[in-house]
Amino acid sequence: MLRPLLVLTVVWGAAQTTRAAAPALMPLPVMVETAPGRLAVDGSFSVAATGYSDVRLESALDRFAARVSRQTGIPMLAARPRDASRATLRVECAGVRGALGARPGAEDPSLGEDESYQLDVAPDGARLRAATVDAALHGLQTFAQLVVPGPEGFQVPAIHIEDRPRFPWRGLMLDVSRHWMPVEVVERNLDAMAAVKLNVFHWHLSDDQGFRAESRRFPRLQQFGSDGDFYTQAEIRHVVAYARDRGIRVVPEFDMPGHTTSWLVGYPELASAPGPYGIGRTWGVYDGAMDPTREETYEFLDAFFAEMTQLFPDPYFHIGGDEVNGRQWDQSPSIQAFAREHKLEGTRGLQVYFNQRIQKLLHKYGKTMVGWDEVLHPDLPADTVVQSWSGQASLAEAASKGYRGILSAGYYLDHLSPASYHYGIDPLADAAQKLTPEEASRILGGEACMWAEYASAETVDSRIWPRAAAIAERLWSPRETTDADSMYARMEAVSRVLEWTGVEHRSNYGPMLRRLAAGRPAEPLRVLADACEAQGLGPRSRAMKYTSLVPLNRFVDAVRPESESVRALEQAASKLDITLLRQQFTRWAANDARFEPLAENNALLEELKPLSRDLSALGSMGLRILTYLESHRPAPKNWLSKQSQELTRMLKPRNEVVLAGARPVKILLDELARRGRK
Amino acid sequence: MLRPLLVLTVVWGAAQTTRAAAPALMPLPVMVETAPGRLAVDGSFSVAATGYSDVRLESALDRFAARVSRQTGIPMLAARPRDASRATLRVECAGVRGALGARPGAEDPSLGEDESYQLDVAPDGARLRAATVDAALHGLQTFAQLVVPGPEGFQVPAIHIEDRPRFPWRGLMLDVSRHWMPVEVVERNLDAMAAVKLNVFHWHLSDDQGFRAESRRFPRLQQFGSDGDFYTQAEIRHVVAYARDRGIRVVPEFDMPGHTTSWLVGYPELASAPGPYGIGRTWGVYDGAMDPTREETYEFLDAFFAEMTQLFPDPYFHIGGDEVNGRQWDQSPSIQAFAREHKLEGTRGLQVYFNQRIQKLLHKYGKTMVGWDEVLHPDLPADTVVQSWSGQASLAEAASKGYRGILSAGYYLDHLSPASYHYGIDPLADAAQKLTPEEASRILGGEACMWAEYASAETVDSRIWPRAAAIAERLWSPRETTDADSMYARMEAVSRVLEWTGVEHRSNYGPMLRRLAAGRPAEPLRVLADACEAQGLGPRSRAMKYTSLVPLNRFVDAVRPESESVRALEQAASKLDITLLRQQFTRWAANDARFEPLAENNALLEELKPLSRDLSALGSMGLRILTYLESHRPAPKNWLSKQSQELTRMLKPRNEVVLAGARPVKILLDELARRGRK
Repeated sequence: MLRPLLVLTVVWGAAQTTRAAAPALMPLPVMVETAPGRLAVDGSFSVAATGYSDVRLESALDRFAARVSRQTGIPMLAARPRDASRATLRVECAGVRGALGARPGAEDPSLGEDESYQLDVAPDGARLRAATVDAALHGLQTFAQLVVPGPEGFQVPAIHIEDRPRFPWRGLMLDVSRHWMPVEVVERNLDAMAAVKLNVFHWHLSDDQGFRAESRRFPRLQQFGSDGDFYTQAEIRHVVAYARDRGIRVVPEFDMPGHTTSWLVGYPELASAPGPYGIGRTWGVYDGAMDPTREETYEFLDAFFAEMTQLFPDPYFHIGGDEVNGRQWDQSPSIQAFAREHKLEGTRGLQVYFNQRIQKLLHKYGKTMVGWDEVLHPDLPADTVVQSWSGQASLAEAASKGYRGILSAGYYLDHLSPASYHYGIDPLADAAQKLTPEEASRILGGEACMWAEYASAETVDSRIWPRAAAIAERLWSPRETTDADSMYARMEAVSRVLEWTGVEHRSNYGPMLRRLAAGRPAEPLRVLADACEAQGLGPRSRAMKYTSLVPLNRFVDAVRPESESVRALEQAASKLDITLLRQQFTRWAANDARFEPLAENNALLEELKPLSRDLSALGSMGLRILTYLESHRPAPKNWLSKQSQELTRMLKPRNEVVLAGARPVKILLDELARRGRK
Repeated sequence: MLRPLLVLTVVWGAAQTTRAAAPALMPLPVMVETAPGRLAVDGSFSVAATGYSDVRLESALDRFAARVSRQTGIPMLAARPRDASRATLRVECAGVRGALGARPGAEDPSLGEDESYQLDVAPDGARLRAATVDAALHGLQTFAQLVVPGPEGFQVPAIHIEDRPRFPWRGLMLDVSRHWMPVEVVERNLDAMAAVKLNVFHWHLSDDQGFRAESRRFPRLQQFGSDGDFYTQAEIRHVVAYARDRGIRVVPEFDMPGHTTSWLVGYPELASAPGPYGIGRTWGVYDGAMDPTREETYEFLDAFFAEMTQLFPDPYFHIGGDEVNGRQWDQSPSIQAFAREHKLEGTRGLQVYFNQRIQKLLHKYGKTMVGWDEVLHPDLPADTVVQSWSGQASLAEAASKGYRGILSAGYYLDHLSPASYHYGIDPLADAAQKLTPEEASRILGGEACMWAEYASAETVDSRIWPRAAAIAERLWSPRETTDADSMYARMEAVSRVLEWTGVEHRSNYGPMLRRLAAGRPAEPLRVLADACEAQGLGPRSRAMKYTSLVPLNRFVDAVRPESESVRALEQAASKLDITLLRQQFTRWAANDARFEPLAENNALLEELKPLSRDLSALGSMGLRILTYLESHRPAPKNWLSKQSQELTRMLKPRNEVVLAGARPVKILLDELARRGRK
């Protein structure tokens, strides 16, 4: 039996974030109360459902037990006992906040279901109470994050948690068109999503550069449009079931009428201009667009939807609808004649007409249409969901007009912005603040977007994780949870826990660096990479001519969007932790001498030589600044200004990366300058 | 067309090993000639069979293309062209040394088939000629090892290679009984085996601690003897096919009549003493043994072999036959009466009788018996193969008596000996040197053995690789290939290439250390782990009471058998590379201050505190020695002897690891002492 908890510490949402000893939970629960004592997690650990159960919950408990065993390295032979009442962790579905009447075991997760749970851990056992199976899955993930080594081995602290999400739609969009992402990439990212309580997988299945779903009705879609890299229908069903088992809805996107070049390779008759078409190899907006004026287009799409809607049980179906440049439509006399005849104004008018036709087709198959900002139009049916890539203003406008919406502006992972940037974007901020509560409730949540121009199956995990966890927290945790320092501290810990889900955001780093080092010890390259941060879409698109055939196997592809070690150095610089700083600067200063021979006769490292020289210069500069700071002597002004110029130069992007290691040195230099001014 | 090579450098076997620029091939081929120039490996790379081909070769070429693409990170859309004559790498099966008459496409790899190949790489293309499909697989692995970044991107040097194995039986034995190894562990190790041209997977499927193969005839074997962890027959067929596709024979082992406790749980009537029996949880030799005197035992085994021999196409079948302690037999009046009646002397006599019966049963199913040393007996049929764990003397004795044999003494990977130790063991050395050529030819090769008392699915890869590659070279390359420095240099490079086969010997290091660090940055722990080497079976069995339920998640389990970074420091110490040494010693000296807070309240790190303090002391000592060496002043004698004592103390094993970092410091201290004596 669970003893009543002696509550000694009550910590609430954002307030908790200042306590160093607080458990590294992400997303942060609504309420966390810790108590003295701990529950041991050892070879006798077990878990069972004591109330409602079904196949989905039982398989989740099996996976959970295997995950805890993997995460701790402890064999757990009796993890799934027959006598549920004796389990270490007992899971009761339905029982929270009057949700007893709810159907806890719906076959598929659905928008707006009760995801609330309570977790109580005491030294003699733990109890998870959850409204639904999906809520129970969230509670299990919270428990798994709590398992860490303690004074007597692996353990969970005694704790009371009450938790529920702020938004019901918390998604990750994955572009599998620009670069092909095999099923195992999808699987491991679904596991990682579940670990941070994301509940919508938005699968961007077609675009100019690839059509990735098998159609039996129109097989030339994948045969001509995918280079052979597509999901079979069996694989699609598998992914949908895999996601469902993890409490994740799958919303497919087939982008139309633009972004459809890959369709037109096999079916040029869909286009608004004569073919032939080839699979897109470059990035950007293509001219190719479906002809919105021909009935055959809608007949094709009707049959296509008839087939595809059967594969995806979720009621929401995404038709993209973004970025039609209108060139083909403008140049087609018949389309222009049609527009005049139907009083459709320009590209916009034609697209609204197209969307209305599509919406009716989807409605026929029981689906609610989702589209990007551009679909927003007064004639749009009220149940349409608008996904905003343009910003909160657009989202608020939609909500004020009665449409439901999800925010993606500010959540584009492929820009490789810092996690703190994404963390600062609130779906209900800015323009949305003026909405009435009813209007605001139409903002369902948001989606992190992973566009894949500059990410391959090998690199994509490190572009999504751990930063997507910060977005997951924004969408789950109370609005007041905004302390970025706390977020970073917890995100680093959760990033390490995420490894046990199978996602390769950390593990691909070493192999990619060793590949570049041509079989030689890669340590000097790792020192350089640790001091750098990779640039995202914009700068990369300007750096060189990329196509889908350019290998993503270079330094920039191995380097992380945010460097954990640079962040640690920035903190050390702020606290003037001289020992750590001196050690690291010494290492940097000596690194170029070790890097140079590694880069000899190596085309992939040759380009990095100036960067490596700068890192060593940075190390020397840092050491000199430390000497000044320790001696309490002021530095000569012209020396200071010269160093400042050097840092400004060094912080300019090169090789598609930023020498982030210059930031902690800048903190020290500023401190030195400040002292000189006193 | 291939241009004739301008041969500038001829390098043969061991001779090559002194050239730093030589390609890092392992096993070293019989003959390597390099020439100027290189073949680019880029997005247009392709491979095809121009001569004989079959399903096995075509699927090998598909896998090879995917492997090269993964290893380089380059998308290769046209890697498998329809027009074979235009492929970058053209593979001709049959054509080497008059093997044209051979059947190049046997369905299964077989003992003694022609494994020779020639590889020619020129700037405009490459050609692989191979006697058989299995030989072609070896040539493809050689090519893959040659692909590294060069001055203009990924490339293979222009080269001419002639190659064939020294021994036809080059195996890896994997114990899946003491710790369960799921199918994916077997798969990835088969891929790594193929990469270093090992061609026998010896699958140790049953032992006291687990019966791991599904029997439909006797289902209680796996139901009662495996804790639910066993291979289904479908999985066994899959593994056999997976191995076959990679040129690897599968030899199953069902150890009997001893090491059979797991059989006796479900079938106690097989035992020589009444049950009940439980699955073995501790290590060592158990009393439980099959009753060799009852006809029912042989009826059972007859039916068992009838079933199992169908699953394994290879003609060789291993019955273990080792370590019967005879206790049950001695204590059984009926067994003793039987022995007297049949004039069988003691345990040995009974076991010989048992083996003869077993051999006849296997013969009925077309199988040749393989057994450990103990099976050797004058009454043994001449076709029996003896696997020697006791040494070359026993092997030579068997060969002189007409039996074929394979060496495993000296190749026990679980002892965690240095690769150089295994490398120095030659199957034809010592007692075997006195054999006639005909007798010597009966020594078929050897097998690396991975016993799993102290290895789990998570850690086993790092216990096998890369050291098994040194044994693979011993069994493949010419006898004169014995330079350990060259071996280590190439093994380190091949260890990194092996990552692309999927084996996790490097990638599990970070996650295991991060697990121990409880979500905090694990860097100080990594510095400590890099300076240590894990101990093997003997010391671990004496260190504490281990059972199969004790988690293998501690520091010793993460630490490597051999430290690459310590080896680099030893080289630096020998060359007096002061910069590198000072940098590393400085890091060590500062490390304990960072390790201490990490170990606080962490049961798994607490025990390492003295070790960590010693590492820092070692760093300080190293720095002081460097100061003496640089100043050319002699050190005081009593200081020297005190440091020497400290190093001796530090080199004593603790926490089941050795502080290997003391070795390079000892090299420096010895140098300092030497100078003082002058």
